[in-house]
Amino acid sequence: MKMHKRNVYLKMKTLAEAREIWERRTGALRTAEQQVDAVSSLGRVTSRPIRAINSVPHYHGAAMDGYAVKAGDTFGAGDATPVRLRVGESAHPVDTGDPLPDGADAVIMIEQVQLVGDSEIEIRAAAFPWQHVRKVGEDIVAGELLLPRQHLLRPADIGSILASGVLAFGVFAKPRVFIQPTGSEIVSAGRGAEAKPGQIVEFNGAVLSGMVVECGGEPVLVDDSPDDYESLKKALREGVESSSDVVLINAGSSAGSEDYTGAVIEELGEVLIHGVAMMPGKPVILGMVAGKPVVGIPGYAVSTVMAFEQFVRPLLYSLQGIHDPAFPAVSAVLGRKLPSRLGLEEFARVILGRIDGRLVALPIRSGAGIITSLIRADGILQIPQEQEGIEEGAEVEVRLLRPGDRLDYTLIMIGSHDNTIDLIADELKGRDSRIHLSSSNVGSLGGLMALQRRQAHFAGSHLLDTQTGEYNHSYVERYLKNTPVRLVELVMREQGLLVAKGNPKRINKLEDLLRPDVVFINRQAGSGTRVLLDYHLERHGLPADRIAGYDQEEFTHMSVAVNVLSGRADAGMAIYSSAKALDLDFIPICRERYDLVIAENSWLDPKINTVLDIIASDSFRRAVTSMGGYDVSNSGRIVGIWDGEKWKNERKD
Amino acid sequence: MKMHKRNVYLKMKTLAEAREIWERRTGALRTAEQQVDAVSSLGRVTSRPIRAINSVPHYHGAAMDGYAVKAGDTFGAGDATPVRLRVGESAHPVDTGDPLPDGADAVIMIEQVQLVGDSEIEIRAAAFPWQHVRKVGEDIVAGELLLPRQHLLRPADIGSILASGVLAFGVFAKPRVFIQPTGSEIVSAGRGAEAKPGQIVEFNGAVLSGMVVECGGEPVLVDDSPDDYESLKKALREGVESSSDVVLINAGSSAGSEDYTGAVIEELGEVLIHGVAMMPGKPVILGMVAGKPVVGIPGYAVSTVMAFEQFVRPLLYSLQGIHDPAFPAVSAVLGRKLPSRLGLEEFARVILGRIDGRLVALPIRSGAGIITSLIRADGILQIPQEQEGIEEGAEVEVRLLRPGDRLDYTLIMIGSHDNTIDLIADELKGRDSRIHLSSSNVGSLGGLMALQRRQAHFAGSHLLDTQTGEYNHSYVERYLKNTPVRLVELVMREQGLLVAKGNPKRINKLEDLLRPDVVFINRQAGSGTRVLLDYHLERHGLPADRIAGYDQEEFTHMSVAVNVLSGRADAGMAIYSSAKALDLDFIPICRERYDLVIAENSWLDPKINTVLDIIASDSFRRAVTSMGGYDVSNSGRIVGIWDGEKWKNERKD
Repeated sequence: MKMHKRNVYLKMKTLAEAREIWERRTGALRTAEQQVDAVSSLGRVTSRPIRAINSVPHYHGAAMDGYAVKAGDTFGAGDATPVRLRVGESAHPVDTGDPLPDGADAVIMIEQVQLVGDSEIEIRAAAFPWQHVRKVGEDIVAGELLLPRQHLLRPADIGSILASGVLAFGVFAKPRVFIQPTGSEIVSAGRGAEAKPGQIVEFNGAVLSGMVVECGGEPVLVDDSPDDYESLKKALREGVESSSDVVLINAGSSAGSEDYTGAVIEELGEVLIHGVAMMPGKPVILGMVAGKPVVGIPGYAVSTVMAFEQFVRPLLYSLQGIHDPAFPAVSAVLGRKLPSRLGLEEFARVILGRIDGRLVALPIRSGAGIITSLIRADGILQIPQEQEGIEEGAEVEVRLLRPGDRLDYTLIMIGSHDNTIDLIADELKGRDSRIHLSSSNVGSLGGLMALQRRQAHFAGSHLLDTQTGEYNHSYVERYLKNTPVRLVELVMREQGLLVAKGNPKRINKLEDLLRPDVVFINRQAGSGTRVLLDYHLERHGLPADRIAGYDQEEFTHMSVAVNVLSGRADAGMAIYSSAKALDLDFIPICRERYDLVIAENSWLDPKINTVLDIIASDSFRRAVTSMGGYDVSNSGRIVGIWDGEKWKNERKD
Repeated sequence: MKMHKRNVYLKMKTLAEAREIWERRTGALRTAEQQVDAVSSLGRVTSRPIRAINSVPHYHGAAMDGYAVKAGDTFGAGDATPVRLRVGESAHPVDTGDPLPDGADAVIMIEQVQLVGDSEIEIRAAAFPWQHVRKVGEDIVAGELLLPRQHLLRPADIGSILASGVLAFGVFAKPRVFIQPTGSEIVSAGRGAEAKPGQIVEFNGAVLSGMVVECGGEPVLVDDSPDDYESLKKALREGVESSSDVVLINAGSSAGSEDYTGAVIEELGEVLIHGVAMMPGKPVILGMVAGKPVVGIPGYAVSTVMAFEQFVRPLLYSLQGIHDPAFPAVSAVLGRKLPSRLGLEEFARVILGRIDGRLVALPIRSGAGIITSLIRADGILQIPQEQEGIEEGAEVEVRLLRPGDRLDYTLIMIGSHDNTIDLIADELKGRDSRIHLSSSNVGSLGGLMALQRRQAHFAGSHLLDTQTGEYNHSYVERYLKNTPVRLVELVMREQGLLVAKGNPKRINKLEDLLRPDVVFINRQAGSGTRVLLDYHLERHGLPADRIAGYDQEEFTHMSVAVNVLSGRADAGMAIYSSAKALDLDFIPICRERYDLVIAENSWLDPKINTVLDIIASDSFRRAVTSMGGYDVSNSGRIVGIWDGEKWKNERKD
């Protein structure tokens, strides 16, 4: 039986305190100085000032094509008093860049010269001394300071350095970062396909390595270490004894019973901080061993990233003598109230999009373990620890995870999910790589609500009016008063019961869901599929409260499919393509229409146009059809135009 | 004798036209697709969508340390009705991440469990199904779209990909860029020290290589080619026949007589654009040869950079299937009228600094050949071709050349130059790498004017009042009405005549400047050194108009020194340290005080504090003294406090 003891974060510090302590202890550390060739110095940081060896230009040269002359010889020249100069004696043909011949101190442009015979030129204006001459040192004077110490080198810097004759100079070495993944049940990323239950695929090492590279460092990713005291101690010792400048120990710093990182750092060196009042990232450990910074990085994917950004990123820059650049940020309006705990600095991932001219930030609801939340997010919203949440509508500062000029290219779709949406998202990139489709799966009704609150460009909806048998219309009338939209048919699709391959429980109709040996997995209330299920249950007189698992809800077709695949449930209601994707059996129940509900304000948006183009394209129709369970005969037709009060130009289905 | 013929840019296009034509012709080109390991995919671009192979998590696991139970077994548990479960039978100890045992569907946190004896736990609250469980597919569902095609990979993306079992996938190859420097009088950067008059050190190749790397490409920098027709043709043919995706031919595209690039592209392929109405960068040539984009890049350093940014940068991104990210930009107030030509898109380099709360942009005056203008600039101001200059005080958009968060760390110093200023600039970086000293050398009087116009944090000044023999005071009174400042002594320094090593012309006193065989080089009017010279000439009754070269002006001590070193002049007036830097002889004339004139509004700025700290430091004083010609006994003392109307607390010198 396992032992249970908890590391209580007695010494928990605020984020600001922790950063200050960390900077005080590590801010003066530098990597070793090394010589680098100028041509390979891009992105490196000077360790000493660089002074020019040669002047640039290093000779007086012609700045124009023409004739080099002695200005004094031309004085008095005018329209009425042209002056003639003998070529090769008092006038020398020069091209841009040629050195001035001895005695010459000016250049006359070729356009202002008249050739007279073979050997003379005539000019009708005097040259003033040093006209059209690039003088020695005009750009760089030998001995001058070209770049101070602690300067990050850009391409043009390298040009100046080379031009002035400096071929090599001192820089700070790239910080080497020893990355030690730990955990007793870890499978390295390369063997992910072999992971057994209880085993976790190690991928944080690759994420950390990538972030180290982005900070100008060199990652040294070593093999996973078991998460026991002696193994960790050995790993830490190897790390600090290696040529690395920093040691990161990933995972093992949670409050779980396998956490020995803190104790091992304490034994070999000093723990400065154990736990920081931030979320995600709380269990981070900061320490020093043998003069080297050591960081225990929490194991949850988002915690790993946040802890790195707060403590390792600034360190990697300061080891090279510069400050970490600020993250780019924008102002946005918070679309949904965002709760947070007092006393904790929280980092919320948000989607960003410009809707009706306002930049809206919509929080993604997901935990610190959900790495895809970092893929889906457009930005990070930091909620100060003094604040207890942020109200909807508040102006917030959001750090960007995509280039800022892409915000106008983000399409926000909220509502029901259909697998064809992924196809559209991918196809959009093919048409214009800047267009990014952010989709949030909250069910059909959630999508309509988002439109009503002006938080989406369009929604996906398949809400059946059980009175009329019609899709979406009555819901739009009820929920989108004063919000004009257009309904566009995306697909007709088959809904049915997903069951395990081979249908071992012989589930063939809705009635079978009432059997005591059948466990069901449901979709959330407000989803079109839930409405559809309830409608059919009622029609057949089947009481929902007799279905085991009816109260267990998932948010997407694919999650329902996964529940069936993993054996958590025996059946679930979903679309055919989700069964096909996971090779499950499918018992058809009915066909339904799935519409895009497009805000009238977005109707003329070129991005929406591109979406409609895609839907109308043959390649899209072929791809959808090949997923199975779809009918695309009417894809793209406008099903209804709602002006906020009534339907205009409606074409019934 | 050389031939002179000009390429007239008959087909000159506007920048917008040229970019459109270029994009139309190259926008659909892509580099080859290749497979890449996920772990080495940072910064690469997906060529196809990436779908998850495995779900994440791939098993139902504990999300907390505690006991895994069947929720049904706990129903009814409460404070008055505790429930006991047998460990190993109906309750299983689990750590975070452990898989749930068969039959278990919930986890009870360790804190909510009471151990009873060795083998039982007691709970006082029911568990609801799936509480504290990380369910299969919670993060990623097998088969789902993880990333669309044409997505630039970030560290967290790589984590998701690996977690879902994808080990390798398709990306677009890094664009290979063949870079051909040309010119008959070129010396490769590595032999810069050997360059003879007329020879130009090739450094643009390194600048272009660096920019290619920054755009995710692979530079292939080849040896310089002579700038004759056949050599260029051979080089271009080699370029397009190599495995490179793009060919750049640097220089040879000016209107000079050595320009054959356009003709060679025309012979082997097609010239799309010859000349663009932009400055710098006008002579750029865009063409296609054997299906590959070929760019003739102008040779002047700044033109090289601008032409690359406008035409090659977007191409390198689009070859990888994505759009080039926008440059970060800020709004600023233009500090000086900026003239520009109608019909030309102009790119002005500017210094940026926050003064009295306003972000001020000050144009740097220098030509397209001055590469250091790109080092000194903080930003680039683009003046549309429809505009004929921009007025002082206008709000302008400036593209940043340094991180935006550094603008508050820029100190703007305008005025007279002293070599100790370089020491301060370097030392500032050592104290806080974010602090950047932008100095503009316009002479002492120009510095006072800049303070008066609130365009500098401080100025350097050594203006002698020839009536009183006092420095700076009377000038401050005259020019800084209503502009409070403090005068701080930086150094006392020796001024004198610089002459060639060994003093071949035996120049020993000011009188010698009147000799017909002596050519002088002067400083600009308004500079302290000019005032000083004129004062001493007058005192000795020496007429300035009898000094040859008196009307030839330079803007810095070092430029004067370079004129003497290069033999353009026999003597010039400058400070001792400039003679020492270039190993010239020095004939002392007098000692003078050089002050920093600090705007009262900046006096409490921590950056100014750091400057004053440095001036007061022993290490600075030692470094200054070692340059020679300086007396630092009173460095840092406040010489006067000017409230805009009168002197307060003045201590006379």
